[in-house]
Amino acid sequence: MSWIKVFAPATIANIGPGFDILGMAIKGAGDIIKARKTDSGVVITQIESTGDIPSDPNKNTAGIAAQEVLKIIGESGGLELRIKKGLPIGSGLGSSAVSAAAGAFAANYLYGKKLSKEKLIIPATLAESKVSAFHADNTASTLLGGVVLVRSVSPLDVVQLGTIDDLTLIVVTPNIVVLTKTAREVLPQKVDFSAFVQNLGNASAVTASFITNDYNLFARSLSDIIVEPVRAPLIQGFQQVKEAALSSGADGVGISGSGPTLFAITNRSENTAAQIEKAMVNGFKEAGIAASSFITTVDEEGVRILE
Amino acid sequence: MSWIKVFAPATIANIGPGFDILGMAIKGAGDIIKARKTDSGVVITQIESTGDIPSDPNKNTAGIAAQEVLKIIGESGGLELRIKKGLPIGSGLGSSAVSAAAGAFAANYLYGKKLSKEKLIIPATLAESKVSAFHADNTASTLLGGVVLVRSVSPLDVVQLGTIDDLTLIVVTPNIVVLTKTAREVLPQKVDFSAFVQNLGNASAVTASFITNDYNLFARSLSDIIVEPVRAPLIQGFQQVKEAALSSGADGVGISGSGPTLFAITNRSENTAAQIEKAMVNGFKEAGIAASSFITTVDEEGVRILE
Repeated sequence: MSWIKVFAPATIANIGPGFDILGMAIKGAGDIIKARKTDSGVVITQIESTGDIPSDPNKNTAGIAAQEVLKIIGESGGLELRIKKGLPIGSGLGSSAVSAAAGAFAANYLYGKKLSKEKLIIPATLAESKVSAFHADNTASTLLGGVVLVRSVSPLDVVQLGTIDDLTLIVVTPNIVVLTKTAREVLPQKVDFSAFVQNLGNASAVTASFITNDYNLFARSLSDIIVEPVRAPLIQGFQQVKEAALSSGADGVGISGSGPTLFAITNRSENTAAQIEKAMVNGFKEAGIAASSFITTVDEEGVRILE
Repeated sequence: MSWIKVFAPATIANIGPGFDILGMAIKGAGDIIKARKTDSGVVITQIESTGDIPSDPNKNTAGIAAQEVLKIIGESGGLELRIKKGLPIGSGLGSSAVSAAAGAFAANYLYGKKLSKEKLIIPATLAESKVSAFHADNTASTLLGGVVLVRSVSPLDVVQLGTIDDLTLIVVTPNIVVLTKTAREVLPQKVDFSAFVQNLGNASAVTASFITNDYNLFARSLSDIIVEPVRAPLIQGFQQVKEAALSSGADGVGISGSGPTLFAITNRSENTAAQIEKAMVNGFKEAGIAASSFITTVDEEGVRILE
C-alpha cells in the first residue's frame, strides 16, 4: 500500500473579537501526516514532535478523527499514520485541530474521497473536542483554508469568508505553556452588556473585512475587550510585547486562539514586518521569555496533499 | 425662498442579533419634511402626525439635527421646517432618527451640500440621542439606505453592507406603546458568555449575508437570544404572533428596533407574504390588539429629495 502525505496549515482562531466563531489558516506552519491503508484499525507508528503527543489512536486527535471518518463512510479498512508536528503543542496555533484535520483528510482521501472538506469538519471537530471544547473555528479554517465564520456549531454552520490580500501576519510564540483548559477556565461566565455590543460590532466588522478584502477595516476592528483581558495575564510580558508591536508599526495585536502565541498585523513593507517581529521577540526576552516567530500570510488552500 | 421636500425611509434596527450595530432602511414608510431657508434660526411651522411631537426645534429631533448641521458648516442662516410623519411614533421603526436624518439632510441640502451623507450621521445621531441612547443604527441606515453595520459609535465607524435581492419583509405594528426608555431599561446588565458567543456568530452571519446577497444565510442567522427574550414581554401577543408568522411560511421573525413593531421575512411569493401578514395581524387581534401592517423590501437609496 502506498503512502500519501497530507499537510494541514496552522490556524489563528478568534481573530481578535470573534471568540469561537472566527478562524484563519496561515502559511508557514502546519502538520504533515503520512498515511497508508491497512486492513483494519487505525495505528500511529511514528510521531515527530517537540512536545508530548499520545500515540494511542483513541487519544491522539489525528487518530480519533481518522476513525470518525472511517465510521461515517462505513469503511472497515484501517490506516497507518505517521505524524510530523510542524507547530508547537499548546501554542494557540490550533495544534490539536490541525492534526485532527490532517487525520480526517487522510482517511477520506485514501478511502474514495467520499466526503467534501466541509463534511470533514464534524469528525475533525469531534476529535478536537476530546482535548478542548466543541468549537469549529480551528478545524474549519485548517480544512477549508482562508478565513471562516462558524455561525453555529450545533447544527454546524460554517461560512467561508475570503482573504485580505495585503495582510501580513507576524506570529510570535513565547516559550510558555498555556493549557487550553486553563485558558477556558478564566473565561467570564457573564459579559457586560456594553462590552458585548462592542465585541459584536468588531466581530461583525472583521467578518465584513474578510469578505470585502478591506485591510483598514480589519485593522480598526481587531479589538477584543472581553476575552483578551482575562487571558492576557496567562501570557507573561503580554502588555509590553503588544505595546512594542504597536509602536513598531503594527496596526493591531491579538492572542492566537487560547494563546500564548500572539499575532500582529501590518500591510506595510517586509521591513516593517521584520521590525515588528524583532520588537515582539525582544519584548518577550525582556520579560525573561524566549520566543520563536515567523512572518506569514493567510493560507487560502487549507488541508491538502503534498506531492 | 423655495421649498424642498425631503424623504427619509423608516428603519429596522438591530435586525435580530445585531443589537445597536445593524440597521436597515425599508421602503413604504418614512417621514417627509418640507424645508426652506430663512434668515436665521430653525423653526417648525407645521407637523402632521398621528402622535404627539414637539414643535420646539430644540426638542424635535429634526429641528435639533438641522441646527447641528448649520453649526457644523458654520452657517448663520436659518430654516423653516414642515414635518409630515409617515410612520408611527414609538413604533420601533426609527421615527425620531428618521426625522433627525431628514432635518439634517434638508439643512445640508439648502446650504450648499457641504457634507456627505456619511458626515450627516453624527449630527443626526446626536439629535436622536436626545430622545434615545447614542446609537447610530437607525440614523446611518435611513441616511445611507440599505443595510449598515455600525462598528463603533465613538469614534463613529459605519460600514455599508448591501442588500438581499429576494428578501421580502412583513412589517406589523401593534397598537401598543413601548417607550424606547422602557425598552432600554429592561436590557440586562450582564450577558451569559455562551449567549454572547451565539449572538456574535449570528450577528456576524447577518453581516455576511447582506454583503454576499445570501437570503438563506440571513434566514438561518435571524435569531437573538439576548435582547428579544427581555423585550418580548413588553409586546403583548409576541409569542403567538411569532409562531403564527413562522407557521405561515416566514423564515424568521424579529423585533424592529425597540419594538413593538415586528418584522417577518420570506423569499417566496407575494401570496406567502400576504398570508404571513394576515396571520400576524390576526395573532395580535387574538391577543386583543389592533395592528397595522405592510409588506416591503430594503430601501437602498436612503434619505433623498422628492420631486
